[in-house]
Formats: sequence, C-alpha cells, structure tokens
Amino acid sequence: MSLQPVLIAGQWREAQDPTDTFSATNPAAKSSLPERYPVSGRADVEAALKAAQEAVAALRSRSPEDIAGFLERFADNIEARADELVTQANLETAYPVEPRLRSVELPRTTDQLRQAAAAVRERSWCHATIDTKSNIRSKLGPLGGPVVVFGPNNFPFAFNSAAGGDFAAAIAAGNPVIAKANTGHPGTTKLLTEAAFEAVKSSGLPHGMIQLLYRTPPEVGLELVSHPLVGATGFTGSRPAGLKLKAAADKAGKPIYLEMSSVNPVFVLPGALRERSSEVANDLYASCSLGAGQFCTNPGLAVVPQGKQGETFLEQVKGLFEGNPAGTLLGAGGPGGIAEGIGVLLEHGAELVCGGQELDGPGYSFANTLLRVSGQAFLENPDALQTEAFGTVNLMVFAENTAQMIQIAAHLEGNLTGCIYSHTGGEDDIDYDQIAPILREKVGRLLNDKMPTGVAVVSAMNHGGPFPATGHPGFTAVGILASITRFSALHCFDEVRPHRLPPELRNENPTGRMWRLIDGEWSQGNIEG
Amino acid sequence: MSLQPVLIAGQWREAQDPTDTFSATNPAAKSSLPERYPVSGRADVEAALKAAQEAVAALRSRSPEDIAGFLERFADNIEARADELVTQANLETAYPVEPRLRSVELPRTTDQLRQAAAAVRERSWCHATIDTKSNIRSKLGPLGGPVVVFGPNNFPFAFNSAAGGDFAAAIAAGNPVIAKANTGHPGTTKLLTEAAFEAVKSSGLPHGMIQLLYRTPPEVGLELVSHPLVGATGFTGSRPAGLKLKAAADKAGKPIYLEMSSVNPVFVLPGALRERSSEVANDLYASCSLGAGQFCTNPGLAVVPQGKQGETFLEQVKGLFEGNPAGTLLGAGGPGGIAEGIGVLLEHGAELVCGGQELDGPGYSFANTLLRVSGQAFLENPDALQTEAFGTVNLMVFAENTAQMIQIAAHLEGNLTGCIYSHTGGEDDIDYDQIAPILREKVGRLLNDKMPTGVAVVSAMNHGGPFPATGHPGFTAVGILASITRFSALHCFDEVRPHRLPPELRNENPTGRMWRLIDGEWSQGNIEG
Repeated sequence: MSLQPVLIAGQWREAQDPTDTFSATNPAAKSSLPERYPVSGRADVEAALKAAQEAVAALRSRSPEDIAGFLERFADNIEARADELVTQANLETAYPVEPRLRSVELPRTTDQLRQAAAAVRERSWCHATIDTKSNIRSKLGPLGGPVVVFGPNNFPFAFNSAAGGDFAAAIAAGNPVIAKANTGHPGTTKLLTEAAFEAVKSSGLPHGMIQLLYRTPPEVGLELVSHPLVGATGFTGSRPAGLKLKAAADKAGKPIYLEMSSVNPVFVLPGALRERSSEVANDLYASCSLGAGQFCTNPGLAVVPQGKQGETFLEQVKGLFEGNPAGTLLGAGGPGGIAEGIGVLLEHGAELVCGGQELDGPGYSFANTLLRVSGQAFLENPDALQTEAFGTVNLMVFAENTAQMIQIAAHLEGNLTGCIYSHTGGEDDIDYDQIAPILREKVGRLLNDKMPTGVAVVSAMNHGGPFPATGHPGFTAVGILASITRFSALHCFDEVRPHRLPPELRNENPTGRMWRLIDGEWSQGNIEG
Repeated sequence: MSLQPVLIAGQWREAQDPTDTFSATNPAAKSSLPERYPVSGRADVEAALKAAQEAVAALRSRSPEDIAGFLERFADNIEARADELVTQANLETAYPVEPRLRSVELPRTTDQLRQAAAAVRERSWCHATIDTKSNIRSKLGPLGGPVVVFGPNNFPFAFNSAAGGDFAAAIAAGNPVIAKANTGHPGTTKLLTEAAFEAVKSSGLPHGMIQLLYRTPPEVGLELVSHPLVGATGFTGSRPAGLKLKAAADKAGKPIYLEMSSVNPVFVLPGALRERSSEVANDLYASCSLGAGQFCTNPGLAVVPQGKQGETFLEQVKGLFEGNPAGTLLGAGGPGGIAEGIGVLLEHGAELVCGGQELDGPGYSFANTLLRVSGQAFLENPDALQTEAFGTVNLMVFAENTAQMIQIAAHLEGNLTGCIYSHTGGEDDIDYDQIAPILREKVGRLLNDKMPTGVAVVSAMNHGGPFPATGHPGFTAVGILASITRFSALHCFDEVRPHRLPPELRNENPTGRMWRLIDGEWSQGNIEG
C-alpha cells in the first residue's frame, strides 16, 4: 500500500526520505487503521523550511484582507467537509460524533478561525504604538520565519496543528505554518490540511504558507524547532516531549510556546461542603470525566478539609466514579500511561479509593479512579503527588486545617487553572483570603465555584500559566487577541518616512476603527499632521 | 580594610560567606579604587531569595500608589545625592561629569523612574481585559518571585541594576528586585541602592524589596537565575555571559530577558552619498564614537556601494576617525576586548584602514578604528565579520550592487537597530524598497536617515530585537509601558466574586482614566451592572 502524501511547497507528494512508516489506531476497536503515513527525514524538513522561507517573502506584500479571507475560506471549507472530518476524527479518537465532535469541537474550531480573521481585519492585535513627538512608531509583525505547530492528541480539531488555536494565531500574525500532525489523528490532520490548502489556493496566497509533515524521528524534530530559518514553535503535548523541544529551541534562541501539563487543583472549603457537598461532587465528577478525563484542564487534584464532611464528600465522589461508565481513551498508550501515573501516586503515600485498573472491552479504557492522601503526606512528597494521570483520575488531599491548605497551595507547581469552592454566604471568606493569593501565583486562571474544563474562546481567557504548565507565565494559547501576539516580533520605526511606514503606523487610521496607543492614549482616530 | 556591606533583608551587613573580594578600577588612571567588595557565595544568595520571598508576600497587600510613591521618592533621592553619584560614577567609568553623567544620564534615569511611577499609578500597563458575557477577566500581575537584575558596564545610572530601566520595570510590575552590581561600578551601585533603600523605608514598603549583591562566582550566578524562588531575570551585558545565564534560566523554566550584542548595521544608499556624503560621514563618526563607542546601539557595520563615492565616503570617515581623539574606555578589559574583536575581523578578510592599536596614556584607550571589506568577502564569512568590537570601531562593507546589499542584509544576525540612509528626493527608493523588508526582520528598530544611538524613552521605543541581540524578538528593555510587561504573569479570573477581584478588574474603573479592553473595545469607563 502506498504511503499518504505530505504537503510540501504546494505539492501533495511522497515523502522524500521516509525513515519509517506508521498508521493510526482506532481506539474504540483496538485496531490499526488502514492508511500508512511516512516518518519524514531531514530532506522533507529542509524542503519545507525552504518553501516556508519563500512564503515569508511573498507574504510581505499581502494585505490583512488576504489573510483574513483565507481564514474565513478555511472555516467554510471545514464546514463543507464536516461529515468527512467528524467520521475520520471519530475513527481516530473514539470521541463521540455527537455532541463532542460535530456540535462542540468543530464549531469551536471554525469560530476560532473566524475570530482570528476578524482580528486580522480589525488590526488592533498588532498593538500599534505611536509617539508623535519623537516620531517613533512600533507595532507587532511577523517573525520572518514559519511557525512549527505540534498539536496534542486530545483535540483533533480545536488544537489541531493544521487548524487549531496555535495555527490560527500563527497565521493571523502573518506567518506561514509547518504543521506536525499528532500521530494519533494523522488522517484528520490530512483532511484539515487539504481544506486549508484549498483555501490558500483560492485566496491567492503563497503555496508554501501551509505545509504538513506527519511525524519525524525525535532528533529531526529537535533540528526543526532550532533551525535558523524557523520563526517560532507552538507545542501542546506531554511534558517530557515538550521539555526536549524547549531545550533545543532555547539553545538556538528560537521562541517556543508550550502547554505541557497541569493537575488543576480544586480547593473545596469547609463552608462549601456544609452548604452543597453533593453539588460540588457532581461538578467534580462531570469535569474530571469529560472527554474520558483527557482535558488539559482536567481537575486531577482536590484539596478538602479532613473530618466528617471531607469523608462524606469523598463518598459522594466515589459513588459517581463507581456508578458511571469509563470512557474510551485516545490510544493504546492511554491505559498504561494512567497506570504509570497512578503508580507514582501510590508509591508516594496515596491510597486507592476506587478504580485503579485497565478495563477489558472492545476499546482502550481505564476505570474511573479516585485516590486519597493526607495533607501531611502530600507535603512530604509534593512533586511526586502532583504527577498527572491523563484520564478520569482524582487525588483527594485531606488538609488538617487552613494553615495546611495554604502550605499545600504553596507547594503546587505551575498549573493552568486553580479553583476554589467557598460558601455562597461568605462563611469561608477568611480562609479564601488566605489561600487565594498563594494559589493566584501558581495558576494562569483562578476560578470561583466552578470547574476548570470548558475553556471559553474570549479575549480575557488565559489558557496558560507558570512553568511547567507552560514555558512562560505571560502568554495564553487561547483567546484572540493575546494568543496572536506570541507569534510576532516588535517592529519599531524611527523617523521612517511616512510613505514607507506600514499602514497601521501612518497618520491616518487604516480601518477607521483600529485601536492604537497614541501618545499614551488608546484611540481609533487619525493623527493630525 | 573592611569590605563594603551587601544589602540583604533590609540590613547593610557583611557578606556571610565571601568567596573572594574585588575592587573597581579608575579607568582614567589605570588604578584600583580603594574600596573592596565581597564576592558573595551561596549563603548570601539564599538569604536574599528568602527575604525577597517575604517581600513578595508583603507586597500583595500594597497599592499601586505605594509603589508609585516609592519610585518617585527614589528619583528625588537620586537628585538629592547627584553630586556624590556623578563623582563616584566618573571615578568608576571615566565618563565625563558634564554633560554625560550629570546632564544626560542622571536625568534620564530619574525620568525613567518617574515614568514608571506614572504608569503604575495610571495602571493601563497591566492590560486589563474583560469579557462581560462570560465574566472572565484578566490582567498582568507580579511574577510571585523577585526579579534579578544584571546591569551592564556602560550605563552606570540609566541601566544600573539598582536604578535603571530593568529595575524600574520590575518594580513597576510589583516585584522585588535583587540587584547584581556591575563589577565596573560597584560604588555607584551601592550609592543608588542606598538611595533606593531609603525610599523603600520612607514609603513603608517591605525591606526585602531591594537587595544588593556585588558579584558572585559564575556558578552561583547560574544558580540564582534558575532558583525555584526567582521570578525572572533581566540581563544586559556580553553575549557569552548572557548565553550562560540564559541556558540556566531556560532549563529551569524561568523567564530571562537579555540584551547581549549588536553591530547595528547602517546601509548608505548611492543617492545619499551623491547628495550628502560628508554629512553622513559626520553622523557615523559622531554616533560611533559616542561614549567611546561603548553603546549597545553603536553602529559597528556600514554597508556602502563600492566605487568612487564609496571610497570618498570611506576617506571622509577615516579623516574623522583619525582627526579626533579616542575616548577613555570603561575598564582594563576594554583595549584587549577591542583588539580581540578586530583580530577576528582581520582574520576573516577585513583590512585595516586606520587605528587598530591600544593607545598609551594615563587611561585605557584604543585608537578609533576603521576597517574595510568587500561585499563578497563579507558574504563568505558573515558570522565572523559581525563580531562586535566594543569601542569606536566600524567595519565598512563595499557592496557591488543592490543585489549584494540585499544578500548582506539577509545574512545579518539579529540586531537592536538597522539604519538606511537614502536620497531625500527619492532617488534611492527602488533600492530601499528591496533592502528594507529584509533588514526589517533582522532588527528591533529600523531608522531612516539617522544613526541609532540616542534611545528615546518613549512608549513606542523598541530597545530589543531578534536573537542574539536579545533573547526574544517580542520585548523591549526601554519604553514604559511595554518594558514593564516583561516582568509580569497573566492572571485570569473566571467567575471570581466581584469583591475578590483586583480593583483593576472590577466593574468600576479604579482611576477613572485607566484604559481597559472591555468586550474588545478600549475604554476608560465603568462597566454597567
């Protein structure tokens, strides 16, 4: 059987020097899917970088309207091929077609692309800043090299390397993209790349703007992210893989944005338990089991007060974990990965409350798993007890008192999110006021009385957080406009003649509604002169 | 003689475990200054980090007004001690008291501090972003750990680790600072730290907010920037030192902002030479010799057309280099460093036009040095021929034609600045339009018809650029507000109860004039609700 083609320099063609081949798995049937994909070697990587560099040059003369039009056509193309896409993604991920793939994730993906298009057209994202007295003007602009996007296994559309948030942000900033498919869903990624490439052609954009590789040997991946021609990298995936790519990119001085791991701690204060223990237990189960527990923002750690109310809460959560079916995991590595994570927790003092074993059946599955540990034991091994188990797994930590909750918060690693449930009448406010400031510095997004899954794609969202959840605490992977700025460079113009300035920095506001920071005030107006 | 005290945890005290001692040099007399300073070991570093962590906690309850007041009191204290400061800085750097130290650099420094104070009070820098529909709100906030600042030797006030741009930005973002003095001017840094610490006390701020170490062994410096308690690092200095610190910080996932090196290319197009060759030569000499050539933005590389006009220009520059005295360099390492840089250039095909040797005399000095090389030779060794020589040194590259100028631009490393001089009547516009887009992607600041020295402290300034000029192309070290954002984390609040939100994210605008991005529009108003 012939190998699936890569997309390089505007051609769907055979990989030039494949070092190996692979196929995707149908996780619902534990079977290999028929298509085989190449593992690309250096020749493909070099060819893609060269074509991307030509695209960088060609893009210099394109307008924001060209880019916005492409993003919208791409969204249209995705919708036109929705049946095919959800069928393929269902095969490769076992996520249900409804509602997850067709009604939730696919519309989220096209919405992100259209939000990016609107931002490109409106132009405020580029943060045009003008000092009229010195005639110094600056804005964010493209990086001068392509963005390499590594997508995760758990969002075949919304974080796909050829259609997801990093893709949309990188394109919106004016960069070409080299997509590295997640090996869990190469077929979905190929379909999305086809839809993207059709939009590239119908938009008259340079053909090297979107390219696709399915996989590389690890050492070639490291060369890719650190290559002199690369602009930056976006990566969503495991911490070990992310840290290796980060080391290579950092050494070469190439920006890399990573989303790697998070146990998303949830603090449940005593008053919240007194008031609505069973409601919070329902929230926790629902959030922890979403997508079979394979969300970046999955709540893997709960901190509760020890004693009768904590025990009741544990029993309530246990009842839900035991009384509901386990979901199908994304791949063959799922059950083993979860077992390994749980093994680390058990080795370091956690006790199993329920679950803990892989399940038999047609698909890959692991029992919903609840563990417990005392606050003191947690503080003796805080790092090991924050080991992520990527599934419906929660470790419940029983804190002796508020002081110990604060200690636990202080020993958390960087996380994407942190939640605090407290009494609605204010009975927990003294505790809250002591715990929240500590937790605040450990997480990107702090929530009250709700669980962290469900990441709204709005401008104020922070899907980011301190290391090792991500690589930098100042950036978000979700939320136009801020997500775009990651993939840009600050371009300053000092006494550059007016006709040579980019339109965004000329005296006349190019859209009549773009926001610009002029002499320290945000304005949609023109500069008199 | 006793060692000068470090400032740790609010105490001017002896270093706890000095591994060595050092003294500063008077470069105008090639003599050691009398005071001796400790090289701090791990005990001082650990003590400083612990005290800084306590300051982080204490700062959580302080208002922007407290921070702004501190910055202004500090600026006042600097002015009150101006005589002492300029005397000491003159001793340690040989920079002239007038105009450089007293009338240029000191006012620039206090201006930066006051601009930072105004930004803190006004609060727009924190980029408050609110989505009212989802009730998600975010802003930039402190890092949760101190910022370590390594200042350079060439700006004893304006980039001083205890008073300069990185210091002001780190404090404005709400972080404590651990200043690591430049070993060229420890006495100046001690005086500035005294002025800062007096302002800390009179502002009622936590005493661990400002701390001072003079020097550490290299391995302890690496531990400092990668320490779990550190928030981030700001470094201005040499590329070898910067890259070592970067590797250590990157590995630990700690943000580090570096300004390392730049040859600041100047392209002089044929029409500009026809029109005003001698004027451009004067500009080049004046900029290249400013501060004895020891500016980060010193123009070290000029690209000119080969042929008669290029040769005439070379002669004009040569006349100025030869006809003017060389300045006094900052330290004993100056002449050797320049000789080494020039050596690399000569080894790789450059020819000496004038200068090239250390000068005798009371102070450290090196002859103004002009070199030349053909465009073709440059393109054969582009990396070596971009070696920085930190002094009044310029390498003039003679390009055969526009195509070669473009090639030269394409082979440039990342730089802080890039200049293009062109004919005022537009006769160079075809060349400009081909060269500028290439140069644009290689530099942070693109200039027309002016030299790069003289970095205006305005909001649109970019004192940054692609690696290896800095560590990240999206950030600037100069220019409030953007410089502040480097030292902050993105803090998102999701359904957090209104009274628990920071004032900047509540419905009511806390200052009545702070700019906030509300549902995609910048506004100074309140949110109805």
